[in-house]
Amino acid sequence: MANIETPPGFEDLLPEELNARNYLFETWRKIAMRYGFVEYETPVIEFTELYRKKSGDEIVSELFSFTDRGKRDLALRPEVTPSLARLASKNQRNYPKPLKWFEIGSCFRAESPQRGRRREFIQFNNDIVGESSPAADAELIAMLIDVMREFGFTCEDVKIRLSDRKAWDIFLADRELPVDDLPKFLSALDKLEKDPESTERKLDELGIAIEDVRAFIANPSAAAELFNPITDSLAERGLADFVQVDLSIVRGLAYYTGAVFELFSLKSKHRAIAGGGRYDQLLALMSNGKVDLPAVGYAMGNVVILDLIRETAEPLARLEEYLTAKTPADVFVVVADEGERAAALSVVQKLRDADMSTDFPLTSAKFDKQFKSAEKLGAKLAVIIGSEFPEISVKNLKTREETNTTFDYLVESVRSLMEASDTKNLIA
Amino acid sequence: MANIETPPGFEDLLPEELNARNYLFETWRKIAMRYGFVEYETPVIEFTELYRKKSGDEIVSELFSFTDRGKRDLALRPEVTPSLARLASKNQRNYPKPLKWFEIGSCFRAESPQRGRRREFIQFNNDIVGESSPAADAELIAMLIDVMREFGFTCEDVKIRLSDRKAWDIFLADRELPVDDLPKFLSALDKLEKDPESTERKLDELGIAIEDVRAFIANPSAAAELFNPITDSLAERGLADFVQVDLSIVRGLAYYTGAVFELFSLKSKHRAIAGGGRYDQLLALMSNGKVDLPAVGYAMGNVVILDLIRETAEPLARLEEYLTAKTPADVFVVVADEGERAAALSVVQKLRDADMSTDFPLTSAKFDKQFKSAEKLGAKLAVIIGSEFPEISVKNLKTREETNTTFDYLVESVRSLMEASDTKNLIA
Repeated sequence: MANIETPPGFEDLLPEELNARNYLFETWRKIAMRYGFVEYETPVIEFTELYRKKSGDEIVSELFSFTDRGKRDLALRPEVTPSLARLASKNQRNYPKPLKWFEIGSCFRAESPQRGRRREFIQFNNDIVGESSPAADAELIAMLIDVMREFGFTCEDVKIRLSDRKAWDIFLADRELPVDDLPKFLSALDKLEKDPESTERKLDELGIAIEDVRAFIANPSAAAELFNPITDSLAERGLADFVQVDLSIVRGLAYYTGAVFELFSLKSKHRAIAGGGRYDQLLALMSNGKVDLPAVGYAMGNVVILDLIRETAEPLARLEEYLTAKTPADVFVVVADEGERAAALSVVQKLRDADMSTDFPLTSAKFDKQFKSAEKLGAKLAVIIGSEFPEISVKNLKTREETNTTFDYLVESVRSLMEASDTKNLIA
Repeated sequence: MANIETPPGFEDLLPEELNARNYLFETWRKIAMRYGFVEYETPVIEFTELYRKKSGDEIVSELFSFTDRGKRDLALRPEVTPSLARLASKNQRNYPKPLKWFEIGSCFRAESPQRGRRREFIQFNNDIVGESSPAADAELIAMLIDVMREFGFTCEDVKIRLSDRKAWDIFLADRELPVDDLPKFLSALDKLEKDPESTERKLDELGIAIEDVRAFIANPSAAAELFNPITDSLAERGLADFVQVDLSIVRGLAYYTGAVFELFSLKSKHRAIAGGGRYDQLLALMSNGKVDLPAVGYAMGNVVILDLIRETAEPLARLEEYLTAKTPADVFVVVADEGERAAALSVVQKLRDADMSTDFPLTSAKFDKQFKSAEKLGAKLAVIIGSEFPEISVKNLKTREETNTTFDYLVESVRSLMEASDTKNLIA
């Protein structure tokens, strides 16, 4: 019988990969909290209706969906925004506005498995609800920039391309074209870079020349009033270099109502690293008009950002520093004399009670083999328990320095040797 | 049209509830890492076959299962152990033994929704793979005890009841009863406390007197050699008071092969807080005999432990201390003069760059209202930006003390006032 494997499109994370993922989570949380965002969580399973209501019937074929024994149509969430809209409109009354809320969680898409496309992925979702001013857009974009700065990216690595759907309202109005054509127009525009010929044909049908569109993108001054409040705010924060106005950014989703933006790498051809925008009508839609609050949000997935970190020098160095520090154990207790195992256990407990990550051989092992185990676990110090207990010898596994201490002074000795070891790492 | 709700049996976590959940996660991770455990992750979706293989066909009716477009039978995981067995047997070759691995993740059960039973819950899973000695059982149980100690529980609050299925092998053998009866016998024993009459009847059928069973439980010295290595190791760590041998503990799952244990509250009638045991044959089963490694593990759910924390004095105090510290923002920048908004933005950025959790009014607001916002967000300090900028006034929102500083010295001033504020909290 064949082994049972991980289902295609899903993945296992071995400890070293899990640490890299936790690095993303910790950085995301750190910056969100620095910006005064608070974390919430919604279930990974929702009524299918939630997605149908937001995105129409077509979305359903892209969902993992099933019927529970109560005949409810349920689905694994493909994104977090509909849940956020549900949760925020139900509970907003109890919180001062604006809400600055974030969630980190798994999302799922039911597409056929293929190389490099995961059916389970993680999204970092950030939303400001209840503030219609572009100041909220700027605050959110600044937070996205600081996430990237914290990973070690500079404005030479990544850029946010900022657009606004209202700019194209102005474009159509200036040309006395019907504003109702906007959705068709935006869907044509969405392919401008990838497929200019088909874009040209579709624009033609709307009575618009592609050169006219290109000229408007090249000189978006007619829409300056839309962008200036955002770019000015970012400039006042010293973050202007991370943003450029680019009206060719459209974003696929129909629910955006104003500013939209995407974060791109300047050096590699990844898909967008993050994307978002203003969606001032979604809460009203999801609450049947009961709660009419403006909102702006963005999401970043775990896959593209981790690939990009791994191929960029400074971000990679920061990730590696984090991973190196995440050794399974900092201290390894060597049982040099099996007759002192009881003493060794009390030593292990003492170190752990002092919050030191500590490991030891569960059963009798040769002296040399124990040092090899310590090394494999990345331990910095070996604490050697032998017949001279309560005298204890502590060895720095990098410098090979050895110090003698006693059971009573153990924690202090280990702590100061650990700090010395960290300092030496910095000097080396 | 009705609002779309959270599906029954699933739950939303508002920020204050999410913080409590993160407190569990942080404590679990902290203690696991202190014990040299490393974290891994498996997907929440697996082949249904994985659970059928471990637990038989009956399990399937308890799963959320569905067929993907590749006609694969998939299921949301009801527990993590089968995934761990799959992952560990596939990858164990690359790691020194024993593996000390943990995972924190959602599990699902498809039962009909009912009060207090969640269809999505979180499990903290810990396993030691590749060590058959009872020293591994003791290490794992010590880790469970230290999780509880870290939450603030003492041996007056909780107790681990330790049993071993092999003790009942001895019991049957001593009475010259067929060892093949063990599964039937254990299933009868499982109901000893809840339904002694049915237990007596079932034991009768096996030719066993219930008094004989009770006497064996009351005096388990015949099985002392099974428990002594574990309880001795715990005693040497100073943790003996948290454990008592109790042969009436059986654990429902069929795959346990030796020691089994459950953690209970001494003061309230919750279900077991955590449970686990030795399962030396599961890796061989899951890998079709290719990898034959012994293993011992336990799992703790998020629901019972959080309820118990909330109803126990010291653990509740520790949780509340954690939650109080998790304010949305530590510093609130007050824009006293709207003409200095650009300056205020540079101040906000400076504080955030120094990793201080900082918020501010996105749009113009009255002076008093800004202080009310600061209070609602739990800010400790207000940084007031007015026409005298770059001179800045910093106010401690608890003591009402005010200090003057300048833009250049802001970070140092805020930091020292923040520390003073923390100290005063401790004194008060």
